[in-house]
Amino acid sequence: MRQLRLGMVGGGEGAFIGAVHRIAARIDGRFSLLAGALSSDPARARSSADALGLARSYGSFEEMARAEAAHPEGIEAVAIVTPNHMHYPIARAFLENGIHVICDKPLTATLAQAEELAEVAAASEALFVLTHTYAGYPMIREARRLVREGAIGKVRLVHAEYVQDWLAKAGTSRQAEWRADPARSGAGGAIADIGSHAAHLVRYVSHLPIESVSAELSTFVPGRLVDDNAQVLMRLGNARGMLWATQVASGYENDIRLRVIGDAGSLEWRHADPNRLRFGGLGAPETILTRGGAGFQGAARVPAGHPEGYLEAFASIYSDAADAILAGKMPKHLPGIQDGVDGMRFIEACIGSSRANGVWTQV
Amino acid sequence: MRQLRLGMVGGGEGAFIGAVHRIAARIDGRFSLLAGALSSDPARARSSADALGLARSYGSFEEMARAEAAHPEGIEAVAIVTPNHMHYPIARAFLENGIHVICDKPLTATLAQAEELAEVAAASEALFVLTHTYAGYPMIREARRLVREGAIGKVRLVHAEYVQDWLAKAGTSRQAEWRADPARSGAGGAIADIGSHAAHLVRYVSHLPIESVSAELSTFVPGRLVDDNAQVLMRLGNARGMLWATQVASGYENDIRLRVIGDAGSLEWRHADPNRLRFGGLGAPETILTRGGAGFQGAARVPAGHPEGYLEAFASIYSDAADAILAGKMPKHLPGIQDGVDGMRFIEACIGSSRANGVWTQV
Amino acid sequence: MRQLRLGMVGGGEGAFIGAVHRIAARIDGRFSLLAGALSSDPARARSSADALGLARSYGSFEEMARAEAAHPEGIEAVAIVTPNHMHYPIARAFLENGIHVICDKPLTATLAQAEELAEVAAASEALFVLTHTYAGYPMIREARRLVREGAIGKVRLVHAEYVQDWLAKAGTSRQAEWRADPARSGAGGAIADIGSHAAHLVRYVSHLPIESVSAELSTFVPGRLVDDNAQVLMRLGNARGMLWATQVASGYENDIRLRVIGDAGSLEWRHADPNRLRFGGLGAPETILTRGGAGFQGAARVPAGHPEGYLEAFASIYSDAADAILAGKMPKHLPGIQDGVDGMRFIEACIGSSRANGVWTQV
Amino acid sequence: MRQLRLGMVGGGEGAFIGAVHRIAARIDGRFSLLAGALSSDPARARSSADALGLARSYGSFEEMARAEAAHPEGIEAVAIVTPNHMHYPIARAFLENGIHVICDKPLTATLAQAEELAEVAAASEALFVLTHTYAGYPMIREARRLVREGAIGKVRLVHAEYVQDWLAKAGTSRQAEWRADPARSGAGGAIADIGSHAAHLVRYVSHLPIESVSAELSTFVPGRLVDDNAQVLMRLGNARGMLWATQVASGYENDIRLRVIGDAGSLEWRHADPNRLRFGGLGAPETILTRGGAGFQGAARVPAGHPEGYLEAFASIYSDAADAILAGKMPKHLPGIQDGVDGMRFIEACIGSSRANGVWTQV
Repeated sequence: MRQLRLGMVGGGEGAFIGAVHRIAARIDGRFSLLAGALSSDPARARSSADALGLARSYGSFEEMARAEAAHPEGIEAVAIVTPNHMHYPIARAFLENGIHVICDKPLTATLAQAEELAEVAAASEALFVLTHTYAGYPMIREARRLVREGAIGKVRLVHAEYVQDWLAKAGTSRQAEWRADPARSGAGGAIADIGSHAAHLVRYVSHLPIESVSAELSTFVPGRLVDDNAQVLMRLGNARGMLWATQVASGYENDIRLRVIGDAGSLEWRHADPNRLRFGGLGAPETILTRGGAGFQGAARVPAGHPEGYLEAFASIYSDAADAILAGKMPKHLPGIQDGVDGMRFIEACIGSSRANGVWTQV
Repeated sequence: MRQLRLGMVGGGEGAFIGAVHRIAARIDGRFSLLAGALSSDPARARSSADALGLARSYGSFEEMARAEAAHPEGIEAVAIVTPNHMHYPIARAFLENGIHVICDKPLTATLAQAEELAEVAAASEALFVLTHTYAGYPMIREARRLVREGAIGKVRLVHAEYVQDWLAKAGTSRQAEWRADPARSGAGGAIADIGSHAAHLVRYVSHLPIESVSAELSTFVPGRLVDDNAQVLMRLGNARGMLWATQVASGYENDIRLRVIGDAGSLEWRHADPNRLRFGGLGAPETILTRGGAGFQGAARVPAGHPEGYLEAFASIYSDAADAILAGKMPKHLPGIQDGVDGMRFIEACIGSSRANGVWTQV
Repeated sequence: MRQLRLGMVGGGEGAFIGAVHRIAARIDGRFSLLAGALSSDPARARSSADALGLARSYGSFEEMARAEAAHPEGIEAVAIVTPNHMHYPIARAFLENGIHVICDKPLTATLAQAEELAEVAAASEALFVLTHTYAGYPMIREARRLVREGAIGKVRLVHAEYVQDWLAKAGTSRQAEWRADPARSGAGGAIADIGSHAAHLVRYVSHLPIESVSAELSTFVPGRLVDDNAQVLMRLGNARGMLWATQVASGYENDIRLRVIGDAGSLEWRHADPNRLRFGGLGAPETILTRGGAGFQGAARVPAGHPEGYLEAFASIYSDAADAILAGKMPKHLPGIQDGVDGMRFIEACIGSSRANGVWTQV
Repeated sequence: MRQLRLGMVGGGEGAFIGAVHRIAARIDGRFSLLAGALSSDPARARSSADALGLARSYGSFEEMARAEAAHPEGIEAVAIVTPNHMHYPIARAFLENGIHVICDKPLTATLAQAEELAEVAAASEALFVLTHTYAGYPMIREARRLVREGAIGKVRLVHAEYVQDWLAKAGTSRQAEWRADPARSGAGGAIADIGSHAAHLVRYVSHLPIESVSAELSTFVPGRLVDDNAQVLMRLGNARGMLWATQVASGYENDIRLRVIGDAGSLEWRHADPNRLRFGGLGAPETILTRGGAGFQGAARVPAGHPEGYLEAFASIYSDAADAILAGKMPKHLPGIQDGVDGMRFIEACIGSSRANGVWTQV
């Protein structure tokens, strides 16, 4: 299978998520990373590119988009791993040059940008993939399939949590810094950074739209300009739900927990134990489904009982992107531009509801 | 140590919680059950009393309260284990006759009754104990102590869940029947039956009052007249919280989970694993505290590693009640009349908020 | 149901297991404790009896056995909760006086005593119950039933562990003291005190006899006269097994784990999570069976999801003993004299094998 | 950092572990796979090489070793992923041609081969790396460090299990087939295939040599020519241990569990939950150490709370191999030829002990 030519914007030395994207792109061997504009600081961009052995390094994403589009062996896809506020102009530039985009979340800094970008994407022949990593976990996909096939009956309740503590104190790291700066992260803090993941999981697994929210966003760390704790009630058709995204939960590393409960059974998944999925049938013993185990219909790299983790989930998003690019078409299970728009709608609705003292707000 | 003379109202054949109270009263050998009005059906009352070998059986609680108060060896305390709507008149009758009351929760069917009962209790020399069983678990008490002593710093977040599925379908059991009848259970369904336990745990462990709530109560089972799912956002001073009480979570037996999170650490307890308490210090490895293990300051019947359960927790409430009766004074850690009033305020505030589309409502 | 009249030998102030037996006897209300020879020290015997409000206190077990047998309202059963070396003479005295015996484990200090006692028991009309507590756990009984009914096919492997640390250092408590004194505990240390429990679970759940053993007993704490760690390989017909009993496993409170594996599936139980039983079918998803949950055929005091623990398991042994006494016949699931003899054979075979450098030794 | 040129012998279409090695080599981007003799079937070798886009494909390992050694841009290292009996001649050929070897386990089919290969390796300038994958898990390395630094005191007990069920029935897959054929796997079945991993973990973490063993190897599946269940008692200086390796444990996917217990504390690791390490201090609460969490001194690709798994562990072996090759020196924590020889000694001692009815046998 031939490797796709990949570029990257952002992800220079000292960045976090760029390195993760690069590993993810390498695991299944579907991409070859050739070009980059790895930093807005040209010196850092160059030294980062050298360290990675990239064939071509650029000082700006605009230049890169134009040059690669014109290059006979130019990149076919670009990974965007910058702070949120840059997603929009960068993604736009590559889409308009016909280069596929694989973009980190949340989609943009504002809903308005998201909607504009959706129009750009619709007009482009290039595909747009949003790296909602958790959608790459095999047991999340298995849960999605089981709900669709009716294994838990009609969905009544959805409960999602994303609980971490890395911002429990005033942060000093680069990652912490831009996430707490509305000019770069957008108006949302925890609700955008991790709440958007949780909300995506809700929609992805339950197959239900989040129609309206009643939210209470809070800021616990003095001086912080965005929320660091988000508590949300959700209405999803006749179903009801709760979502909790917090970055100040002292003593919790990065717990994600999703429960989808129907009138005939329920599914529960925890990020700390990602290769297992609890199925609780009403009136039946609890069953533990496993990646690679009996009944599993998804894909796995290693046999049952050999844990796969976060990087493999991320790699599955990349490999699906490769498949999609080669097929010229987004599959339904791969998060795309509409998921990004939905995410931004959710974030803005939560912010709006919270500012209005929790009034139920349409998403 | 001499045994206290105990009576019981409710708890005849076919009832559930009455038998649990009787075991709880027996475990530590502090009470001797002598008299009862075990059913509103006189024949059942008598046959139930015979089966239990009670010395004295009554056809009504009024008669029992009067007769026992007059008896030279009359009961010193009464356990009230009837449907909710009967708690008020029964408790009142015994309190007014100077007999200590050990009453199941929620306190009454309405807040108005609760407040009246509080006045009666204040005027009586008899004590009033509310069986919030979970407050009897050693590790819940340990959590309460640790929060009070500052182990987690200043409380920021409280998250309580009570998740079960026994009412996931239209119920047919006697227990299910009265709980779904507002005339007997009061206006609340899940919010009263189990939400009251969760709310008590919140207050008991966090030492914070629930000041206001934004609630969404739902009824999923057609024809049911009370809520079977309750989602609540809470404000507790500067802290924030979420509470979820559901009786329609298909595939969940009886999961209770409490997280109290401060700026320096967190505590987490699960009913499914009640002898352990997770302590997560900010920037420190997770620690598992155990009943009887290092640092434990509470009381235990058996050594560390020998699980105690629900009945032992219930027994601790009874034994504390015995201590309190002998001392003539309620200790702070034993739930009493004010906890019952607080519980009713919480229930009514949630119902009110939900009817007003989730508006934040003072408790 | 009338209460049986119970006596106790041993269990005076400062003892551990006597108090546990008393709670166990109380939980289901089937016994009334009336008489005792609670200590070999007469003053302690009397003060202990007073503290418990016993009707009759004796200075020696011989006197107690004779007097109670002659008393018109004498005890019907006696609980023996002394150090091991006293089990034999005490049990003999009561059996010969026609009084039912409920005896702690291991049965005796030596196999020879055990075999003699078995003859005495066979000649007596009184029943003999051995308190292998773990056989009272509902999910252990459920496992026993499932194996018998073929749920896991033909048993291939049995793996039992009893891992604790309370003797990791030279002990100073009374309980520690006599357990480390061969004159009182018998020749076995960990192998007798806890290994006997593990071996009973093996036989009880697998329905297989332990035919021969290859053992390595060790003593890690300097100066200790008995083993504190026992590693055993077992042959059980065509099945194979391992047993590990240790009292020096620093950092482990009281972990017991039993796995019984057949050609079609397996069952796993852990004492730390006693209300659940893992069933792993070959080629099927793991299933978690619960006390009170779907498919459960045993008895439970409280609904599924309300944890029962060690004291309830112990109480089930007592309540079964009450049933057996009233029926005049031992049921198969209640540990009796033969289980005690089997236990002593196992202990002596392990000691013999270990002394012979691990040679396979018939049990 | 420049990529090392890698070749592979074995791992053609239909093979399992070859693909795992390739992913492992890719994750950190330290190797570039250029050449292979992917199958002993030349057609399959070629088509497999084409599918992988290798620059050079060979029909035999001998030819490959010679040609690559002579090639100006020949491979610097070779991964050997064939059935066990081929490890010896292949490794020998590459070592003698000065090409570094990264070889799957167990080292060889016989101890005699292992010892010869050790001599060859000693005489070669090329390094020899053995892929004991589990030694790549961060928390296994952390455990190794903690034991070395005295965190649990003097080691008393080591307990290792490797429990899986993929050979619970007569197998039909290619992987199952050669593993059950003594001509290709060597004399050991489970004891070699997975017991060698467990034994390596014992030595790797405890820092103790396994001095002698008493083993019981069994074959449960009719017609199978090698053991499928191995039960081993171990003496490690003054420490004692048990090891259980089974491939017929119906209902267990691939459970590995290691406990190392000292006089001051203990460490426990489970493959199913590989990012956590339980530390139990004597007289202290249980602590859960995590990859990336407080006190962690190892390396991690993603932050705490983002699970890494089997492939990342494997990749760490590869990346360490790259570091070693560039440094020209094996670090102590990377399994090498001596670990392979130790493993073969262990396997042969277990087989010998079992054939001699469990007699204690020097390793």
